[in-house]
Amino acid sequence: MNLILLAPEQVVSDDRYALNERQLKHIQQVLKKGQGDTLRVGVLNGAIGDAEFDAVQGEAVIQSLSIAPPKALPLELVLALPRPNMLKRTLMNITAMGVKTIHLLNSAKVEKSYWQSPVLTEASLHSYLIEGLEQARDTVLPTLHRQVRFRPFVEDILPTIMDGKIGLVAHPYQAEACPVALTEPSILAIGPEGGWNEFEMQKWGEAGMKTVHLGDRILKVETAVPVLLSRLYPAH
Amino acid sequence: MNLILLAPEQVVSDDRYALNERQLKHIQQVLKKGQGDTLRVGVLNGAIGDAEFDAVQGEAVIQSLSIAPPKALPLELVLALPRPNMLKRTLMNITAMGVKTIHLLNSAKVEKSYWQSPVLTEASLHSYLIEGLEQARDTVLPTLHRQVRFRPFVEDILPTIMDGKIGLVAHPYQAEACPVALTEPSILAIGPEGGWNEFEMQKWGEAGMKTVHLGDRILKVETAVPVLLSRLYPAH
Repeated sequence: MNLILLAPEQVVSDDRYALNERQLKHIQQVLKKGQGDTLRVGVLNGAIGDAEFDAVQGEAVIQSLSIAPPKALPLELVLALPRPNMLKRTLMNITAMGVKTIHLLNSAKVEKSYWQSPVLTEASLHSYLIEGLEQARDTVLPTLHRQVRFRPFVEDILPTIMDGKIGLVAHPYQAEACPVALTEPSILAIGPEGGWNEFEMQKWGEAGMKTVHLGDRILKVETAVPVLLSRLYPAH
Repeated sequence: MNLILLAPEQVVSDDRYALNERQLKHIQQVLKKGQGDTLRVGVLNGAIGDAEFDAVQGEAVIQSLSIAPPKALPLELVLALPRPNMLKRTLMNITAMGVKTIHLLNSAKVEKSYWQSPVLTEASLHSYLIEGLEQARDTVLPTLHRQVRFRPFVEDILPTIMDGKIGLVAHPYQAEACPVALTEPSILAIGPEGGWNEFEMQKWGEAGMKTVHLGDRILKVETAVPVLLSRLYPAH
């Protein structure tokens, strides 16, 4: 937690926010802050600044809010739903890297049971995004869409969001090397552990998505995602 | 496991290797291969090719070994010892990405107890490297050095390995942006969760290491490592 992130429901009065249990524990036990100490805070979807720690009330009293959150990555990520423990880490990591729109997509090789995992409850997904923001000192919550049907997503939704963006689908075969350092925004689709199937690849192609590979090495989704984002926007 | 990796101790005769339990389980239960089926195999520190699966003997019979392993990353990684569960994932990931020399280094903010973790036994470390190779379809085992004392490493060992390489140390403050797309080999040092301390930064500087940052976002070690490697050698 590199930032104490304050949500609207924590507002007590104009400049006072009630800290939740997790934040109080972190402030007192990890940061070892006491009454009157300064905290680095951010307002959810807002600015970053300093607050005074009111240990008695368990509140943060805003002193200044003048720092803009870090720049967003100009990339919309479509991710075939990974297995739950990998999803958790991946959501935190891509949020920390600055992705602001995430689509969790069904695919032939995604196990049906994954969609029923407790990791996919609204509250649980929200908590991973928050952890990603806290890690990276960001405040802007990503938007997360569940796309439980592959075909309607690719045929109906994808065309509406592709406008003005480069569309890329990661796939090890019949692909060209993934480009380095894009200057325009993009949509990137990353498949399940077993890869996209033939029908899916055909659909991506029909939608105008270009097939790209990462070289000879096969990487896990949790490694491939930061590698691809860094390669597409290395100086970000 | 995208490659069945065969070690010298598995040799039965010229072209026959005894498969271990973990490999047999993977071949039969995940790959669902049976008697006479073809397996993609690699010889540890050697070539990649095909073998016939002898399910009766539990052996792989080499048919061809003509494919070279993927190219190594021209980067030597110095990693402040991360907490054990992160070390495990990080070792697998950096091995999968093609790093061939890894130094696990002590640092003021590394908890002493980490060095006593069962994750750091020879057998356990070896197994993470092997898993990284199996993931990436590589055969060349990285060399892993434990550098349990910071100062002797930076003063005595580092100068001997820096020759002809760019030396970079990741640090969020008093740093310039990490370069993109190096054309020469490098040594990269990545700090512990709490960062390098002042003395350590001074020592890195004296040794000729350049301080580089990744931008406003603070990333976990497990994310920062693939991001940095991909940024330094994006087209690798």
